[in-house]
Amino acid sequence: MSATLIDGKAIAAETRAEVARDVEAFTARTGHRPGLATVLVGEDPASAIYVGGKQKASREVGIEPFDHRLPADAPAVEVEALLERLNADDAVSGILCQLPVPGHLDGVALTGMIDPDKDVDGLTPLSAGRLALGLPGLRPCTPAGVMVLLERAGVDLRGAGAVVVGRSNLFGKPMAQLLLGADATVTTAHSRTRDLPGVCRTADVLIVAVGRDRMVKADWVKPGAVVIDVGMNRSEDGLHGDVAFDEVSEVASAITPVPGGVGPMTIAMLLRNTLAAAELQIARRVPA
Amino acid sequence: MSATLIDGKAIAAETRAEVARDVEAFTARTGHRPGLATVLVGEDPASAIYVGGKQKASREVGIEPFDHRLPADAPAVEVEALLERLNADDAVSGILCQLPVPGHLDGVALTGMIDPDKDVDGLTPLSAGRLALGLPGLRPCTPAGVMVLLERAGVDLRGAGAVVVGRSNLFGKPMAQLLLGADATVTTAHSRTRDLPGVCRTADVLIVAVGRDRMVKADWVKPGAVVIDVGMNRSEDGLHGDVAFDEVSEVASAITPVPGGVGPMTIAMLLRNTLAAAELQIARRVPA
Ligand SMILES: NC(=O)c1ccc[n+]([C@@H]2O[C@H](COP(=O)([O-])OP(=O)(O)OC[C@H]3O[C@@H](n4cnc5c(N)ncnc54)[C@H](O)[C@@H]3O)[C@@H](O)[C@H]2O)c1
Ligand SMILES: NC(=O)c1ccc[n+]([C@@H]2O[C@H](COP(=O)([O-])OP(=O)(O)OC[C@H]3O[C@@H](n4cnc5c(N)ncnc54)[C@H](O)[C@@H]3O)[C@@H](O)[C@H]2O)c1
Repeated sequence: MSATLIDGKAIAAETRAEVARDVEAFTARTGHRPGLATVLVGEDPASAIYVGGKQKASREVGIEPFDHRLPADAPAVEVEALLERLNADDAVSGILCQLPVPGHLDGVALTGMIDPDKDVDGLTPLSAGRLALGLPGLRPCTPAGVMVLLERAGVDLRGAGAVVVGRSNLFGKPMAQLLLGADATVTTAHSRTRDLPGVCRTADVLIVAVGRDRMVKADWVKPGAVVIDVGMNRSEDGLHGDVAFDEVSEVASAITPVPGGVGPMTIAMLLRNTLAAAELQIARRVPA
Repeated sequence: MSATLIDGKAIAAETRAEVARDVEAFTARTGHRPGLATVLVGEDPASAIYVGGKQKASREVGIEPFDHRLPADAPAVEVEALLERLNADDAVSGILCQLPVPGHLDGVALTGMIDPDKDVDGLTPLSAGRLALGLPGLRPCTPAGVMVLLERAGVDLRGAGAVVVGRSNLFGKPMAQLLLGADATVTTAHSRTRDLPGVCRTADVLIVAVGRDRMVKADWVKPGAVVIDVGMNRSEDGLHGDVAFDEVSEVASAITPVPGGVGPMTIAMLLRNTLAAAELQIARRVPA
């Protein structure tokens, strides 16, 4: 392998240590401890594990976790009432409604209820609009984490050709907007793209978030390109990304592994967003 | 010239005639006439002409125009109070705050105050977020007009390679998102793009909104591409677009002229948005 490994695990640990220091300074300065409320509806085991991980990570950096769990058949009004209470609660800086929610609930509508200044997942329409217009706001965690990886890897995005494969609201679309904000020339490719290998080959920075096990091959990658693999695909032979790591790492100049690349950054950015949200709310409480 | 001319003037006239019919049907059905309020602060002559044009166009399709003008030194609180009154006024379906506003006012903040269901320019953060997330909402007029031109010209966007040059909040960014929503593979290029001619040459559909007189030359365009010219540049020898029309029309398969291309669509889409806003508000007034 000739590519430099972008070590997401190490960079995430550094980011968390930074957040811990910043939380301490914030608490010393304001007398207020940032709090992260998670809302989990139902008993999906994977979701429960994610939520548990977020709770634990919060505690480790000095953010107070609030763990709200509702039964799988909780009526919409009950979830809404909880979100309203959390919106109004000064101890709660950030609110995260774990998706997916059970079928009788509308995940988009519930997420949209979260106070945009507490929207630490960055997924409400107002947060998406702030990002689209280049206004300050809370950004979605996974693409924000990729921006940190690129920065720490010393990638110069200005004028670089970036290709994002995938256009989900969760990742692909906000990723493209963050790259555009950093002055890259940005192409968004997806399931309808003709000649996807050809499009990928134009990229100086190639970011793949599709969910197809080792789809991107060595001959899809321009020699020297930086490759960020967001995919997480579990199969009989283990966890793999959307990029055929073994062969692509012979062509790329830098690459993220799976696991240990993008994945660890997501929670680190959630913690950073929670602190940023706490700052926003302190600013809001000071009468203008 | 070998390219087909995309006749924006004719398509805009058709669109306005359609809106007039739809307004009539709406009024017959609901007993309510859609209304468009324009807010002009100051005496900028170009802005006054634009606002006058919008007032006249509204009247022609059966939309009631409300013409609000404030002196150039109107304090922010006064403009805000007017916007709040218009937000609350059931006779007003759509509100448009003509930009730019005088220097002591914040155009982004004022626009952001408009009720998103009355945001007929589609420029508030919430409207931008609804577009980014693919949710229903009011879309910015000029890019929405380009979508109509492409549709009427029979351009199949699915899987097509689209390049948008320019990334303004007013045009380039929402244009890219509308194209993505129509399943194109979308590249956004801008002032920092390296090898802009090369990027443009990859486009099946090339859309240029930069504001540089006849910047795009024939050898920037893939033979057979569809070219949409959003630029409006006034010089000694007349009004020209961002595309060197005479030479590019020898290479493209279809092209918009300047004037008579994109320009006329903007007001037509504003009228369509005003009707759409009136529909939204009727729906909102019916108790759920
Ligand atoms: N590490 C993390 O924290 C993290 C966070 C988000 C997503 N992910 C992973 O990233 C992947 C994508 O997640 P998502 O939520 O964005 O996915 P999604 O399923 O919402 O979207 C997938 C996207 O891929 C595109 N696509 C599908 N098939 C394609 C093909 N054959 N060629 C090109 N494009 C194709 C689709 O157009 C779609 O936009 C998944 O593996 C997911 O687990 C990881
Ligand atoms: N017909 C209409 O109704 C209508 C509506 C909006 C804009 N326009 C016209 O479209 C043009 C652009 O308007 P806007 O408001 O989007 O402009 P803007 O000035 O806000 O943005 C211009 C964009 O062009 C890019 N750019 C600047 N120089 C460049 C270069 N040399 N190469 C590549 N990109 C470059 C910049 O990055 C920027 O994103 C103007 O001529 C304007 O008059 C027309």
